[in-house]
Amino acid sequence: MMPALVQDPRVSVVAACDTDGEALEVFVREFRAKPYGRLEELCADPDVDVVYVATPHSLHGPHAVMAAEHGKHVMVEKPMALSLEDCDLMIAAAARNNVQLLVGYTYGQSPAVQKMREIIDGGELGPVRMINAWNYNNWLYRLRPPHDLDVALGGGAVFNQVVHQIEMVRTLAGGPVTSVRASTGAWDTGRPAVGSSLAFVEFDNGVVASIAFSGYDHFDTDEFHFSIGETGEVKPPAHGETRKALGQVKDYSEELRLRAEGRSSMYRRALDPTHHESEQLSQPHFGVIVASCEKGDLRPSGDGVMVYADAGKYEVPLPPVHRPPGWGGFVEEVYNAVIGAEPPVHDGRWGRASVEVCLAIVESAKTRREIRLPLEG
Amino acid sequence: MMPALVQDPRVSVVAACDTDGEALEVFVREFRAKPYGRLEELCADPDVDVVYVATPHSLHGPHAVMAAEHGKHVMVEKPMALSLEDCDLMIAAAARNNVQLLVGYTYGQSPAVQKMREIIDGGELGPVRMINAWNYNNWLYRLRPPHDLDVALGGGAVFNQVVHQIEMVRTLAGGPVTSVRASTGAWDTGRPAVGSSLAFVEFDNGVVASIAFSGYDHFDTDEFHFSIGETGEVKPPAHGETRKALGQVKDYSEELRLRAEGRSSMYRRALDPTHHESEQLSQPHFGVIVASCEKGDLRPSGDGVMVYADAGKYEVPLPPVHRPPGWGGFVEEVYNAVIGAEPPVHDGRWGRASVEVCLAIVESAKTRREIRLPLEG
Repeated sequence: MMPALVQDPRVSVVAACDTDGEALEVFVREFRAKPYGRLEELCADPDVDVVYVATPHSLHGPHAVMAAEHGKHVMVEKPMALSLEDCDLMIAAAARNNVQLLVGYTYGQSPAVQKMREIIDGGELGPVRMINAWNYNNWLYRLRPPHDLDVALGGGAVFNQVVHQIEMVRTLAGGPVTSVRASTGAWDTGRPAVGSSLAFVEFDNGVVASIAFSGYDHFDTDEFHFSIGETGEVKPPAHGETRKALGQVKDYSEELRLRAEGRSSMYRRALDPTHHESEQLSQPHFGVIVASCEKGDLRPSGDGVMVYADAGKYEVPLPPVHRPPGWGGFVEEVYNAVIGAEPPVHDGRWGRASVEVCLAIVESAKTRREIRLPLEG
Repeated sequence: MMPALVQDPRVSVVAACDTDGEALEVFVREFRAKPYGRLEELCADPDVDVVYVATPHSLHGPHAVMAAEHGKHVMVEKPMALSLEDCDLMIAAAARNNVQLLVGYTYGQSPAVQKMREIIDGGELGPVRMINAWNYNNWLYRLRPPHDLDVALGGGAVFNQVVHQIEMVRTLAGGPVTSVRASTGAWDTGRPAVGSSLAFVEFDNGVVASIAFSGYDHFDTDEFHFSIGETGEVKPPAHGETRKALGQVKDYSEELRLRAEGRSSMYRRALDPTHHESEQLSQPHFGVIVASCEKGDLRPSGDGVMVYADAGKYEVPLPPVHRPPGWGGFVEEVYNAVIGAEPPVHDGRWGRASVEVCLAIVESAKTRREIRLPLEG
């Protein structure tokens, strides 16, 4: 998200807050931002218009509420929170203080999925009926902070990865989810977070979807997607490489150190204009997803959307992508919401609905029963 | 199935019965078999050891029972029947008359799926946990007899196509199915059978599976399978071609005539030894299927099984395939059962369990509720 923010001339990164002094130091040096050790102080800064809450999921609620209470607009990373109670507090705080609350970025907001939605809305393919999404990747073996692995802190695949698929499916299906039947898996005792998930989802309008995820670095759905990686880069096959690399890391504190190093080099790349322009990318994507309408199927292609209609298939191209890929649409949405030009689609209610589906997946996996929505908040 | 039967030197095609005189005439001419207009007469023929029931699904029950009552072993096409009552009558008749009853051929019996099962049984990848199967093909627009289209006669995708996926998933998962949540679609008013289906299936042992099918000739999962067709042939992209070809057929009686013509040329190919040997085929397959074990994923590759293990991926090759592809394993199983060498895996109870899952899919789609198994018979 940072690259998209710094590249937008309407956005200035003015301040940052982190309890990790070292991380804060790197950030403020790279982005020339004011450092704050306490969030209240950042929220009291009159130069700040929008607070981007990128803290561990379990803290999204209190941090977003604090920002709203100080009259700041709020962008919060997905998942919006880990409970419907927190979501409701965030929505209420934003409403009470008359500020915008937006949740993102997710792959539901990616150009390809948005284009698919636009084609569906065009009506030529008839109503959408069935959506199937698979993602098999190496998520669990990338360098991970504690809150990605510890279920109590919102760790595991459901809140961190499947939520992208939920948002893609919701974007394409429209309407509220009424039923979830799901199962999750935690298969690696050495990395004991939930790493896989399978869900059947039905919507109020009768659309059904399946969402399959595995982050165990075995099969890789990018094989089905032209060997293009998640952020649009060319991706040679590397099955098992991520697990192997993690195997070289001697303990969890080294993993955290490597992660911090990676973050600071990511910051430098975000600020390097030559890097942004140098590489032609394909569209960002998240596994494979096929949406079936009565008169045609749709799926993201490398550089656009492939339409399989009654008379044959054709590709709808999307504008070429440069770094940062995709995220710009969300920055645009935030900007328009903040200046009052357009109410956001991905507001608190939107984000809450995805949290609700995540919670239903967890509950269905636990009880081995179908869960009807809405859940009691 | 006929090519596999005529090529096995242990099998003789001695007689045939059909109420369609023209079809019967073609069959007995091509296969040099005795013609019967009534099934009782065929069943009374002392030269007949095994009756292969390939009648419309709704007649499998009475026909299989009749054959068993005459002391004949029975092979019955999938689905075994359209109700559990019929399945139970068939099983009871076979037991009472001390004859074998086998159900097939399905893609669960294909060499690749059998090899996947063998690898799972080997235990190196740990227990199987999640299986996902997609098939998007052109099924609905191929030339179809009435009983493929009319739900009352067992028409529609669930009993005709999804049953293959059910058998693949059951073969890989092991154990009985305990829960089904599903939805089906009938999207083309000009071809009003059920043409799509999505099901979440949970097994007694905790394995979960998703089964997605669309026969609407839009997206084609063979794109994900090396552009190899169902029976292992090289398959250039031809989206929409089947629908277009069917559009040239002026009415349903012409469709039936073309189907009959196709059948007789198929018979000739079955008997043509040069045809069998001439073409090197890839493995037969039915869409894409990925089985996830705790320590690795498996899927059919073009010529074997691809294993994505902790340390990377490798391919387990299968013996080269010539026409007829795959079916031979089932003929072997029938032969061994009939001579008393080995009890069959794909017996009446096996076939009944797949019918039960089909019925649960239909019921869940109707009620939009989870269906718990076993169903009341």
